[in-house]
Amino acid sequence: MKYILFKLSLLDLDVHGYSFLNTQTNTDFIFVDLLPAKNGEEQTIQFLLEVVEILTNYIRKTFDRSTKVLDFHHPHQLLEGMEGFNLELSDQDTLKYGVRTGHPRFFNQLSTGLDIVGLAGEWLTSTANTNMFTYEIAPVFVLMEQLTLKKMREIIGWPDGEGDGIFSPGGAISNMYSVMIARYKFFPEVKTKGMAAAPRLVLFTSEHSHYSIKKASAALGFGTENLILLNTDERGRVIPADLEAKVIEAKQKGYVPMFVNATAGTTVYGAFDPINEIADICEKYNIWLHVDGAWGGGLLMSRKHRHKLNGVERANSVTWNPHKMMGVPLQCSAILVRERGLLQGCNSMCAGYLFQPDKQYDVTYDTGDKAIQCGRHVDIFKFWLMWKAKGTIGFEQHIDKCLDLSAYLYNKIKNREGYEMVFNGEPQHTNVCFWYIPPSLRGLPDSEERWERLHKVAPKIKAMMMESGTTMVGYQPQGDKVNFFRMVISNPAATRSDIDFLTEEIERLGHDL
Amino acid sequence: MKYILFKLSLLDLDVHGYSFLNTQTNTDFIFVDLLPAKNGEEQTIQFLLEVVEILTNYIRKTFDRSTKVLDFHHPHQLLEGMEGFNLELSDQDTLKYGVRTGHPRFFNQLSTGLDIVGLAGEWLTSTANTNMFTYEIAPVFVLMEQLTLKKMREIIGWPDGEGDGIFSPGGAISNMYSVMIARYKFFPEVKTKGMAAAPRLVLFTSEHSHYSIKKASAALGFGTENLILLNTDERGRVIPADLEAKVIEAKQKGYVPMFVNATAGTTVYGAFDPINEIADICEKYNIWLHVDGAWGGGLLMSRKHRHKLNGVERANSVTWNPHKMMGVPLQCSAILVRERGLLQGCNSMCAGYLFQPDKQYDVTYDTGDKAIQCGRHVDIFKFWLMWKAKGTIGFEQHIDKCLDLSAYLYNKIKNREGYEMVFNGEPQHTNVCFWYIPPSLRGLPDSEERWERLHKVAPKIKAMMMESGTTMVGYQPQGDKVNFFRMVISNPAATRSDIDFLTEEIERLGHDL
Repeated sequence: MKYILFKLSLLDLDVHGYSFLNTQTNTDFIFVDLLPAKNGEEQTIQFLLEVVEILTNYIRKTFDRSTKVLDFHHPHQLLEGMEGFNLELSDQDTLKYGVRTGHPRFFNQLSTGLDIVGLAGEWLTSTANTNMFTYEIAPVFVLMEQLTLKKMREIIGWPDGEGDGIFSPGGAISNMYSVMIARYKFFPEVKTKGMAAAPRLVLFTSEHSHYSIKKASAALGFGTENLILLNTDERGRVIPADLEAKVIEAKQKGYVPMFVNATAGTTVYGAFDPINEIADICEKYNIWLHVDGAWGGGLLMSRKHRHKLNGVERANSVTWNPHKMMGVPLQCSAILVRERGLLQGCNSMCAGYLFQPDKQYDVTYDTGDKAIQCGRHVDIFKFWLMWKAKGTIGFEQHIDKCLDLSAYLYNKIKNREGYEMVFNGEPQHTNVCFWYIPPSLRGLPDSEERWERLHKVAPKIKAMMMESGTTMVGYQPQGDKVNFFRMVISNPAATRSDIDFLTEEIERLGHDL
Repeated sequence: MKYILFKLSLLDLDVHGYSFLNTQTNTDFIFVDLLPAKNGEEQTIQFLLEVVEILTNYIRKTFDRSTKVLDFHHPHQLLEGMEGFNLELSDQDTLKYGVRTGHPRFFNQLSTGLDIVGLAGEWLTSTANTNMFTYEIAPVFVLMEQLTLKKMREIIGWPDGEGDGIFSPGGAISNMYSVMIARYKFFPEVKTKGMAAAPRLVLFTSEHSHYSIKKASAALGFGTENLILLNTDERGRVIPADLEAKVIEAKQKGYVPMFVNATAGTTVYGAFDPINEIADICEKYNIWLHVDGAWGGGLLMSRKHRHKLNGVERANSVTWNPHKMMGVPLQCSAILVRERGLLQGCNSMCAGYLFQPDKQYDVTYDTGDKAIQCGRHVDIFKFWLMWKAKGTIGFEQHIDKCLDLSAYLYNKIKNREGYEMVFNGEPQHTNVCFWYIPPSLRGLPDSEERWERLHKVAPKIKAMMMESGTTMVGYQPQGDKVNFFRMVISNPAATRSDIDFLTEEIERLGHDL
């Protein structure tokens, strides 16, 4: 047998354990699954151990602040080495040119950090390589999901944790579920007859809410024009009076208000919509209330901060992403529904060829028909393992610590020369939104020219930051506000010294702009 | 500092490396992310190595035929140990009570096997823990996805691999994308105005097709009644004349035929619809042609078998799941679109707060706005790594081998006493559908009573099979056919001896029924 040696040099190390037979006629030969060879088993284990050595070295470096957050290259530069599926190229660059999202100074996304227990859970999950389709093929994971969703519903405050739910591939899909379920609740005949069976339905969400509500409106056949945007106060929170006025206006036009999304933790400002006041209006007009807690849901684990979601127990459905504020590895998002039966009713197609009713166990545990997916990735185990390891109190400590850090940043810069806050007052979540004003702009009057020049500052600083690879933080415009930095902290590895480093870095890079 | 020891006994081994501080006031303390302690780094590495030891032992056993495929317990039995989130319980059972989907005798699903290189890819992916949202945070993975999708389009046969595509969380979502994109192509105003802006639209798919087309019809606002089911021949393939007749009928009623799904590899029979003949009709009536190759798409890699998808290059969109026939770990599904721009047009919301146009790199690489998701799991790396390791020829060999094995099974049982084939002729895919007739039923005339009794045979044998844990194969009814076994082979570890074992096991368990 002749082997071709495959050079799996993922990082700095070369792994020579992987080989395969290029031509093979014996149909009983096991290709590369157990690595082939007389001592295939040993080669397999050796190969995996070498991979793990690469990965643990990567992890070591990620947590070392002297390591760069990224080694930036433009697309065309990386593509040079990847074109044509060339066997000789590019594996070695996968981790090298990636972004270290677990680095203590990576603040760019809502999901940051690298939880080691969660990581171990993912490694186990991928080794088990099953899916959440039926109890038959994932008995333990299906039960873990059920128990965990119940626990989450208890924390929301629904009596005895009653209700339903499912893990979905991210907050956008979870939010899409909420709109589908609401429609099924009020107009179940849409499932069979389509949108023609319903009157003109309108949905409401804040102008600061996540774009997935808009994507759902388009995808599900409502149309984005039937998604009515609500005004917010200067902190980015829905103004309940505006909601009621728009509901009344819609009804006067003959439309049917069906769905309101309240955001618990907006993407940019980290604002929490006033759920109780919104719930009052929803109850008055018989409208489905969804709470998008993809980002802010984690605060329910904190006795100190959960009051920001007061009223969440009045919601009909809640999106909550443990992969954001709770540090669970991507992907881990739950859609939770207060009324049992709707999720099943909305999505089930009772395909007997997939869900056999005459199996030997209680087939109500087969969750597949509730989902819009068929095969479904196992997202529960890493979360289950982390929860058991940290306990609820561990999540609480993590969340409190991140919010303390953001308060530290806010207090540090709110009156500091060269900084201007995008809105006043303590942040509700870990989002701290600010402009850095380079010395050259500090004397300028409040003019259009000043704002135009300021608009270009954050992108310039960000570009230099990425080139130097020292830290990463996001920026964006919002409404009539020109580009500003949005600092978010969900990384458990971050400390006050990293916050200090960020401001020093912004000042260093932005000083001469 | 006082540590609480966490007993992470996932299998037979206890891992004592994981501990955390229960109460903590110093906000600069790193909780459990690097494991806490003065020697946290060493503890972290030690912990991960012990996890890997557990996993490699699991892998060793999975490929050992003397290991049970599963250790079956009913839900209530497993739940006894899991209730109440008890810290002392149940981690140890995660792998023990799971199902070994990589076992050479696991034939229960379309996705089976455990490819070691793919597994290494998943371990690396979860360690990188980023998402496919922007080039900024996943530069290498974004480019790998782009190159791989292009390669897949070339294999489909679209000129120069032109077109578009994205990896989605499974075939059901990929199929949903195809319906959304078709609607956007013909009625782009639905995006903003909803389904009210379109005439009554109808979709077509075979009665043997996957239920995800029906789920998409319900979710996207068409209604399941506007999904017209097509008759099939006795092999489960769409009858093109039936499609044309139903298109004409729909038009006569004033409906607008918009979308036809042709299945390449049906779930139960493994049938391939005649794509060329269907494409003729779609072109004649200006209807979108989607090919659902979730299960059969892999055959495009085989020179011997790809003719079964002849005409696929005429499709407007194709679903193709490398996580099925190609053995890539779950999840890995692609939706491929022939016309560039539609995916973006259909789904983009141009949220400036998420996709900043003024970044320093070419932002056309930011794929996030094409997706209905926001954060998106990295599904590409494992596939990329496997492709580079095996080569196209390696996938071809795997596919040819699986089809050879199914031919072996078919030839073995087609005339064997006690077996009856559900349909005649060589299987098109690896699906072999058959009844096992226990001796007690062999003398009975072809009566209702015989079929009723036969209906109960497969569930009984399957239940005993699961109790004994020796092998797993699926069964289901289909149309007017009572419960039959559906054997599928996608597991690279399977050999002829495993096929022999399966029939022996069926005969052993079913003999006295």
